[in-house]
Amino acid sequence: MKYQAIARDLKQKIDQGLFRPGERLPSVRSLSGRLDVSVSTVVAAYQLLEQERHIEARAKSGFYVGPKSLIRPTLPPKVKSLRPARLSISDHIADIFANTRNDQYTHFDLALPQRECQPQTALKTSSNRVLRQQFPQTLLMSTSPGIPELRRLLAQRLLSGGCLVSPEQIVITNGCQEALMLSLQAVCSPGDLVAVESPCYYGFLLAIESLGLKVVNIATDPQHGLDLNALEDAAKQWPIKACICTANFNNPTGGLMNDESKRELLNLAERNNFVVIEDDILGELHHEGSRPSSLKAFDHQERVIYCSSLSKSLSPGLRLGWVVAGAYQSQIIERQLANSSGTASFPQLLAAEYLKSGHFDKHLARVRPLYQNNLERALNVIQNSFPEGTRATQPAGGFLIWVALPKKINALDLFELARAHNICFLPGVVFGRQHFKRCLRLSFVSGAGVCCNRAV
Amino acid sequence: MKYQAIARDLKQKIDQGLFRPGERLPSVRSLSGRLDVSVSTVVAAYQLLEQERHIEARAKSGFYVGPKSLIRPTLPPKVKSLRPARLSISDHIADIFANTRNDQYTHFDLALPQRECQPQTALKTSSNRVLRQQFPQTLLMSTSPGIPELRRLLAQRLLSGGCLVSPEQIVITNGCQEALMLSLQAVCSPGDLVAVESPCYYGFLLAIESLGLKVVNIATDPQHGLDLNALEDAAKQWPIKACICTANFNNPTGGLMNDESKRELLNLAERNNFVVIEDDILGELHHEGSRPSSLKAFDHQERVIYCSSLSKSLSPGLRLGWVVAGAYQSQIIERQLANSSGTASFPQLLAAEYLKSGHFDKHLARVRPLYQNNLERALNVIQNSFPEGTRATQPAGGFLIWVALPKKINALDLFELARAHNICFLPGVVFGRQHFKRCLRLSFVSGAGVCCNRAV
Repeated sequence: MKYQAIARDLKQKIDQGLFRPGERLPSVRSLSGRLDVSVSTVVAAYQLLEQERHIEARAKSGFYVGPKSLIRPTLPPKVKSLRPARLSISDHIADIFANTRNDQYTHFDLALPQRECQPQTALKTSSNRVLRQQFPQTLLMSTSPGIPELRRLLAQRLLSGGCLVSPEQIVITNGCQEALMLSLQAVCSPGDLVAVESPCYYGFLLAIESLGLKVVNIATDPQHGLDLNALEDAAKQWPIKACICTANFNNPTGGLMNDESKRELLNLAERNNFVVIEDDILGELHHEGSRPSSLKAFDHQERVIYCSSLSKSLSPGLRLGWVVAGAYQSQIIERQLANSSGTASFPQLLAAEYLKSGHFDKHLARVRPLYQNNLERALNVIQNSFPEGTRATQPAGGFLIWVALPKKINALDLFELARAHNICFLPGVVFGRQHFKRCLRLSFVSGAGVCCNRAV
Repeated sequence: MKYQAIARDLKQKIDQGLFRPGERLPSVRSLSGRLDVSVSTVVAAYQLLEQERHIEARAKSGFYVGPKSLIRPTLPPKVKSLRPARLSISDHIADIFANTRNDQYTHFDLALPQRECQPQTALKTSSNRVLRQQFPQTLLMSTSPGIPELRRLLAQRLLSGGCLVSPEQIVITNGCQEALMLSLQAVCSPGDLVAVESPCYYGFLLAIESLGLKVVNIATDPQHGLDLNALEDAAKQWPIKACICTANFNNPTGGLMNDESKRELLNLAERNNFVVIEDDILGELHHEGSRPSSLKAFDHQERVIYCSSLSKSLSPGLRLGWVVAGAYQSQIIERQLANSSGTASFPQLLAAEYLKSGHFDKHLARVRPLYQNNLERALNVIQNSFPEGTRATQPAGGFLIWVALPKKINALDLFELARAHNICFLPGVVFGRQHFKRCLRLSFVSGAGVCCNRAV
């Protein structure tokens, strides 16, 4: 489309320094004249750039280059879609985990809100209210699909991501990890092929390995998310059964797919007959503007199984996730009865009480700028103190930065060295099988950005 | 062994009415003379019968026939070890569950302590204490293997079943179901053969089906548990990878293996090189005497993976189980990271606080006679009101009765009929694939025995 080409050109020019951060872009009318295209094409191009957080609209003033283009995000070492392979990553990850769960450490590895980024007072109030008003109920078993009131309140929340689902379509799970595991079980049989973004959250890789599935690595842009051409190529070559996609703020890169790409992904899935398993766990943690749409919002063919949780946005101690599985729902419930029976009662009742209290939006409004600020400070430190040649992503949501070090540095060596100084981060290798040796993921979830000089 | 033969003979005589319930048995010395065996052989025979709850010792008075031999437990329809088969039981079970979770029903189907059989006050006190003293900690994520203090306290509890394990050997799980699922995943690959008691808890069958394993049904005696000859035959015939065994109060039959059989099971496993996955979830709920030993207590070769939970003995709302996996521990932790990451924090902290309070033994001392009394009343009703030819088990622990109806009655038809009258129980078919059409499981967990006339 013409507007996409114009947006791409403009983006390139901005990156090349034609327009600097904070500078005003040409008015829609003037650019329309200069490029000899319609006003609406320019508007569409600007809106696309805005959606991708490169530029921002200011009321009655026009469009400006975003403030955050200080460091140009870079593609990680380019990933080709390798032959589908079985994984053996779990030893590695269990080992890293066993050696990093230590209170003495400074944690840039934990992608979970610590106490000060959780609504402690409100959660305590809700806890007390549950104990006072619903106490004996907290002692009763809750089996799959979970407590109706919580399912109702979560269905309400999904509206913000553009999903209109009924409470009956929601199954409460033991965190997003169980949601993902059940989704894979429902869709795939051992030996089946699952496409993942590369890099992707290591929990996906653990689940794929555990179920005896094979992985197909698809390149993903650290800023714009899944490379759809690479996915289409892979899907033509191999019988992909499912694709796990974190369209909103990929973990570890923070990449964000725009609405157009989201629609196109679903068309691609339709053409190639695979299921999209969406991980939307960071969807509520956009830094500015409105919440990005979930893939599920564009799903008219029941192609998307939606997974999320309250672990990142509210509290990881609850271990509450959920899955909207559409046609696969009854299989998900059967699998959950086999897997864990269901989730504990108290966390469900607490979450329902908290969601009903109406504090959640206020809490999110508080932490979003906090995370944004953390990342900006961290990026400054990276720019000023990391070795020449370091590249880093600048996510528009969440609290993670994906860093590519200069060629001479191996992130796994650095990991050992840092740990010897009681500093932890996650080396790139846990996010993909054989790539990302120079990469690392830094988490700035709890204002730790202030100490990040110590990280190298 | 001679004492076993004597015990078997005596048991037969008791069943045939030679000695009636409550009557005193011959003194050790006189029987020794009459049978021309040593005193110690008679003592061993009496102790075996006592362990199996047929007779009881009274201080300074001798041995008496137990009061509960009113209805003779009967073998359920004899199960042959059929060719190993894949299961398709989950639809059936999910369907039954979906249609029985209704507050309007009288529940003889739920094998879970309801409010009045949980230590409500103490749990509330502990809950409040956790919120007051450990509050922000409840918000933090707990990943596998779980919170150290709870692991320590559970390791202490395992001593009562004769297991000496260190806290580090315990992995906290989302109920016993996840413990079992992870154990099967650690030991088996898709297509492998798993031996189960027939009948057995339907959750085992769900897990086996979900993992693509094949089941080998082994006959189990409703009173004495797993038929070791049948298991040995099956193990010679097929390459069994694991055997799931509920040695202490089988669900649904209530069968209890004696220590000799437990030892022999482990020898058998050693000879045939399979792993024993022990479900000891009802082990603490013996009605009288001391807690029966767990299989794990006799395990000197790391052949047993021990699974249990607090759901039956304390509160199902916590959804807290655990697994002692020995050589398989690191695999279990890896699998759990993939499966659910771990369990919610609040239930773990609450359970630890409760266990530390020292109330658990008092609570168990309160509910054990309650369950025993429930079962006795229920058995009287069954004897007096169920059709001629009905057989029922008389477990020495737990709160379940396994009933075999006369031949003309199909339990699934009765299930539909009862449900139309808002009464629920579990039909026998959910405890085994093609057997037990005349059987049903009745649960008398919360004094519901008083209404059990309405059940037929």
